[in-house]
Amino acid sequence: MEPAVSSAGAIERMDPGHAAYLLGGAGDEITLRANQQAWQDLRLWPRTLHSLAGSHARIDLHGRTWPTPLLVAPMAHQMLAHPHGEQGTALAAASQGVGLVLSCQASQPLESVAGAVRADAQRGPLWFQLYLQPRPEDTLTLVRRAEAAGFEALVLTIDAPVQGVRDRELRTGFSLPPHLSAVNLAPPPAEPLDALLARAPTHDDIAWLRRHTRLPLLLKGVLHPADAAAAVALGIDGLIVSNHGGRTLDTTVATAHALPAVVRAVAGAVPVLVDGGIRRGTDVIKALALGASAVLVGRPVLAGLAEDGAMGVARVLRRLRDEFVAAQALCGCRSPAEAAGLDLLRPD
Amino acid sequence: MEPAVSSAGAIERMDPGHAAYLLGGAGDEITLRANQQAWQDLRLWPRTLHSLAGSHARIDLHGRTWPTPLLVAPMAHQMLAHPHGEQGTALAAASQGVGLVLSCQASQPLESVAGAVRADAQRGPLWFQLYLQPRPEDTLTLVRRAEAAGFEALVLTIDAPVQGVRDRELRTGFSLPPHLSAVNLAPPPAEPLDALLARAPTHDDIAWLRRHTRLPLLLKGVLHPADAAAAVALGIDGLIVSNHGGRTLDTTVATAHALPAVVRAVAGAVPVLVDGGIRRGTDVIKALALGASAVLVGRPVLAGLAEDGAMGVARVLRRLRDEFVAAQALCGCRSPAEAAGLDLLRPD
Amino acid sequence: MEPAVSSAGAIERMDPGHAAYLLGGAGDEITLRANQQAWQDLRLWPRTLHSLAGSHARIDLHGRTWPTPLLVAPMAHQMLAHPHGEQGTALAAASQGVGLVLSCQASQPLESVAGAVRADAQRGPLWFQLYLQPRPEDTLTLVRRAEAAGFEALVLTIDAPVQGVRDRELRTGFSLPPHLSAVNLAPPPAEPLDALLARAPTHDDIAWLRRHTRLPLLLKGVLHPADAAAAVALGIDGLIVSNHGGRTLDTTVATAHALPAVVRAVAGAVPVLVDGGIRRGTDVIKALALGASAVLVGRPVLAGLAEDGAMGVARVLRRLRDEFVAAQALCGCRSPAEAAGLDLLRPD
Amino acid sequence: MEPAVSSAGAIERMDPGHAAYLLGGAGDEITLRANQQAWQDLRLWPRTLHSLAGSHARIDLHGRTWPTPLLVAPMAHQMLAHPHGEQGTALAAASQGVGLVLSCQASQPLESVAGAVRADAQRGPLWFQLYLQPRPEDTLTLVRRAEAAGFEALVLTIDAPVQGVRDRELRTGFSLPPHLSAVNLAPPPAEPLDALLARAPTHDDIAWLRRHTRLPLLLKGVLHPADAAAAVALGIDGLIVSNHGGRTLDTTVATAHALPAVVRAVAGAVPVLVDGGIRRGTDVIKALALGASAVLVGRPVLAGLAEDGAMGVARVLRRLRDEFVAAQALCGCRSPAEAAGLDLLRPD
Repeated sequence: MEPAVSSAGAIERMDPGHAAYLLGGAGDEITLRANQQAWQDLRLWPRTLHSLAGSHARIDLHGRTWPTPLLVAPMAHQMLAHPHGEQGTALAAASQGVGLVLSCQASQPLESVAGAVRADAQRGPLWFQLYLQPRPEDTLTLVRRAEAAGFEALVLTIDAPVQGVRDRELRTGFSLPPHLSAVNLAPPPAEPLDALLARAPTHDDIAWLRRHTRLPLLLKGVLHPADAAAAVALGIDGLIVSNHGGRTLDTTVATAHALPAVVRAVAGAVPVLVDGGIRRGTDVIKALALGASAVLVGRPVLAGLAEDGAMGVARVLRRLRDEFVAAQALCGCRSPAEAAGLDLLRPD
Repeated sequence: MEPAVSSAGAIERMDPGHAAYLLGGAGDEITLRANQQAWQDLRLWPRTLHSLAGSHARIDLHGRTWPTPLLVAPMAHQMLAHPHGEQGTALAAASQGVGLVLSCQASQPLESVAGAVRADAQRGPLWFQLYLQPRPEDTLTLVRRAEAAGFEALVLTIDAPVQGVRDRELRTGFSLPPHLSAVNLAPPPAEPLDALLARAPTHDDIAWLRRHTRLPLLLKGVLHPADAAAAVALGIDGLIVSNHGGRTLDTTVATAHALPAVVRAVAGAVPVLVDGGIRRGTDVIKALALGASAVLVGRPVLAGLAEDGAMGVARVLRRLRDEFVAAQALCGCRSPAEAAGLDLLRPD
Repeated sequence: MEPAVSSAGAIERMDPGHAAYLLGGAGDEITLRANQQAWQDLRLWPRTLHSLAGSHARIDLHGRTWPTPLLVAPMAHQMLAHPHGEQGTALAAASQGVGLVLSCQASQPLESVAGAVRADAQRGPLWFQLYLQPRPEDTLTLVRRAEAAGFEALVLTIDAPVQGVRDRELRTGFSLPPHLSAVNLAPPPAEPLDALLARAPTHDDIAWLRRHTRLPLLLKGVLHPADAAAAVALGIDGLIVSNHGGRTLDTTVATAHALPAVVRAVAGAVPVLVDGGIRRGTDVIKALALGASAVLVGRPVLAGLAEDGAMGVARVLRRLRDEFVAAQALCGCRSPAEAAGLDLLRPD
Repeated sequence: MEPAVSSAGAIERMDPGHAAYLLGGAGDEITLRANQQAWQDLRLWPRTLHSLAGSHARIDLHGRTWPTPLLVAPMAHQMLAHPHGEQGTALAAASQGVGLVLSCQASQPLESVAGAVRADAQRGPLWFQLYLQPRPEDTLTLVRRAEAAGFEALVLTIDAPVQGVRDRELRTGFSLPPHLSAVNLAPPPAEPLDALLARAPTHDDIAWLRRHTRLPLLLKGVLHPADAAAAVALGIDGLIVSNHGGRTLDTTVATAHALPAVVRAVAGAVPVLVDGGIRRGTDVIKALALGASAVLVGRPVLAGLAEDGAMGVARVLRRLRDEFVAAQALCGCRSPAEAAGLDLLRPD
């Protein structure tokens, strides 16, 4: 076991523009840092003297059992980090029992990514992330392709109706290299801001999408408990508490701070997942203690991919899983389900 | 779109004495920093799934509609920053739909500044800031000139009865260069401290000024809710929550911390505006969420002016406006009025 | 007006051992810093629109009126800082309307220090600080000499029954140079720790001293409200909230944090003063707002003395007084008595 | 008296791998730092005017009186720090009236360590720490040897069912040198994680061990009040609030923050001790004020041992004891028992 690949190290070695796009955040990157700090600041209050016989890391989600409470967050254009791209990430995640949420802005065909891991008996969940496309028929085409490829749930991202302010990308003059593109999507039309805003996802859009697929549908990008409750009422199958990893709107509430209110609002009706700032096994168990069913991990995966392709991703995820297993035992819990009962302390 | 001109950069390139005067603060500059920090520390809690069709940035103030909730704060001696001076600032602000509050200590005639932008259909509000002059007739002369020049409101500054302690100016030995002066004012008499204190504005002075002009009258420099309520009772038409940008009394309450109590005390009777530390579009939407009708921006404008004259100011204001528009959409609001309903979280 | 002599600068130029003794603190100097930080962290909430005509800085104490709410704190061995010693400090303080509390460990005869300023009509209070001496008759001798020399009150220090842990003195190997001594005191006996502890001042000692002088008697070194109330019951005439400038016990409560509870416990029965960390005029007005009648200033005076003798002290005190006068006006107060009504905000 | 040997200095001079093992912590070493910070952040609120005659530092524990409320925490492999090893530590502790908790992973025979100090009339408590061994008979053998060697209590560590994540050890590639071993233990079997977890100590194990020795039995590694109450119900004789010095699970609650809840839960039924981050005499008195009967000190002892063998340990402990005696007097307390009544303030 080696120390995890740190984002800082990867940033130093990467092209500054690529690092700005892949690992940077919006504005002054306050939320990017605050997400991590919020997990770090929570204090574990371990239990002792309970039997740990039969410990495991498994979770149940949408009627199935998965090996770990970990998934790779959806991230666009992974070939920018390494030629292995999304396939490399998928293989590495499967090898560690970690789930995959494939971005609709992937740099490789969704069918080939799913095909590489679908049959792996040890893998975690295989989900597909999408944005509502400018034309509804394009959205449905994506959904049908994802269903056909064997994805097991859809994750609709709802928190980015417009581009965020990306100071670091502006400073480095980043633009996507010509040989990379979102190969799964129709070329986007040039839209004025007004049109873009008019297309922001609404309750009606969710209801429409819900009607058009039998796959479980999760919404990603919910922070406010009132929105969470409204989403549940629309019949969705899960929520991902997220601020887009601090990439769109700076100084939003950290996800660790938003999670408890969302969990209370949802009241167990659907699973609540969370992403943003998860770097350590102790962060994972804190998320479970706050009521999350599982967590999504983003930048550390990209840093591992940039460092060493699929092997780098596997190293990052193996370490995170091992840290989580150790943390679970040291907190006196036998399983992620037991971790939901842990007390935490917020330092002052 | 380019990154905003930062004050830090401008300070490095400016004459240290000029920077001390234009961009420095009182004492240890604790309030100067705390103003910015207070906005930054507030956490946005965005809403989702609401339609954003028909989004706009317009506000209503004193019966008129303006393109943005942004105004340039009154700042003296702008030719110290750049030969374009107040006219440059005025033209740049108008080009971005941003209002202008002209300082009575402007280095250019108020008539020429107003004349340069008065007829611009896209501009924001055109207001005139004044101090009570040693002789009442001089105050009235200023008021009549402002009325005649087309200014649409008067802003009386009430929070600087005496000079503040300006360590940085003392260290750099700053004094106004001989070719610059407050061309709109009668030469100030040499007054002992006692006389200066005896002239500090009182409730009677406000009532007197209120009787002597038909223009809307706003008070700038209110921090305490009891003073806000008393001012409303005097018939004024608006309040600007301000600590003079941290230039007079160090370690005062940050304006973001004073704003909510003032808004509660005023209870909607008149518009409440705020300045101090606004640097980002997210700061603007936070001010609106706390009940402000609009915000005033100071040092970033001077930094832009010092950097590149009117062009520099336009760049700064365009970026601030664009950031605000993006933040508004990403918070799920269609207008500044809707932003008033946003929840914020204060991290601990 | 020039910037104040900062302790940091003076420390750099002084002999490290002398600086350790004169300006250092106990342990890790956490309380030394916390005292300053506590004042700095309090936020002023200025008032406006009130008449400032007739403003002044005078206070009433024990039936007399004094020009400012400022006193020089008792500090031992001032000739270590500069040959002017305590006389220099006394003359400088008198010239600025600042009171003097002479340490019984002064390096110059108490009679000559008092004689130098007693007749000055512009001076502040002239008080004498003492510790209980090993032999009661030595204590009474000190009291009689102080009475005869014209001191107007006695200040008994009660918070240093044993030496504190002075890491910086130990590191620099400081010891008092042979030509300096506490000339007003009988040579101290070599006492074992047990004897020292047995002599720690008690309620009985206070009652005894109270019976043996007609001068007002103040206790210095009270932090806990229960001790404050007990002291008042013994008939003392004032309390000085102090942690010995952070020189004896590190990590004690900052004086700004202890002051409000003491003020409540005393409930106006006697004046409450405070020292520790006062560096700015804004610190002074905050102490008044928290209920202090006056403040004592220590290290800045020594730093000024080390820098330039009596002139250095005068410069430091003039600046502090000027800053206080400006702060009082900018807070909308006409006098120290009015400052007692100011609201403060503690940032979080 | 010289300044204490600081861990920082010792780390610089030691082999990085040895320092990582002896003085490092788990993960990002957040808990390692937080333990110290938590004591430092508590503010003492000293009392005055109470007689200090007859002051002493003695405590009563399990029916005996000891010279100080200080013990050396159990730490493995002390010959890694210095050839004097555990015997050197034991002799130094005894010379300062400080107790010793010998680790079962000591690098010297437990009999020889106990034999070196058992007869010392000035020493503190002599306790033996153990982990449950893979085979119950090995545990009982250890217990019998400890009883026979004259240890006066057993301390069972319950908070480390599995190894923690030790980033610094991994970075330095630390492994125990071949000439060192846990000479008191049977060679450990190679156990898979499942077997290790199945052996984690449970309530039944405590009841079993309680039945098999007449020595007082303390549990080390309790943080949660519910576990503390359950342990008391099992008939144990004391609790040590500990997070293993931040060596196993990073970001656990600091021991100073966990202590008050445990003290409340135990309600005086058995003594509660605490370790983690104690560096100063003021830390010791704060622990007593929060309800601890005594404190254990770890890394400073190892740093002293590494620096100068037994002499280094004696220097560290003498200084800590002297600092505690001074702090007790300066807080107005005559004994550790009186310190239990001190008020503390937590700064915000």
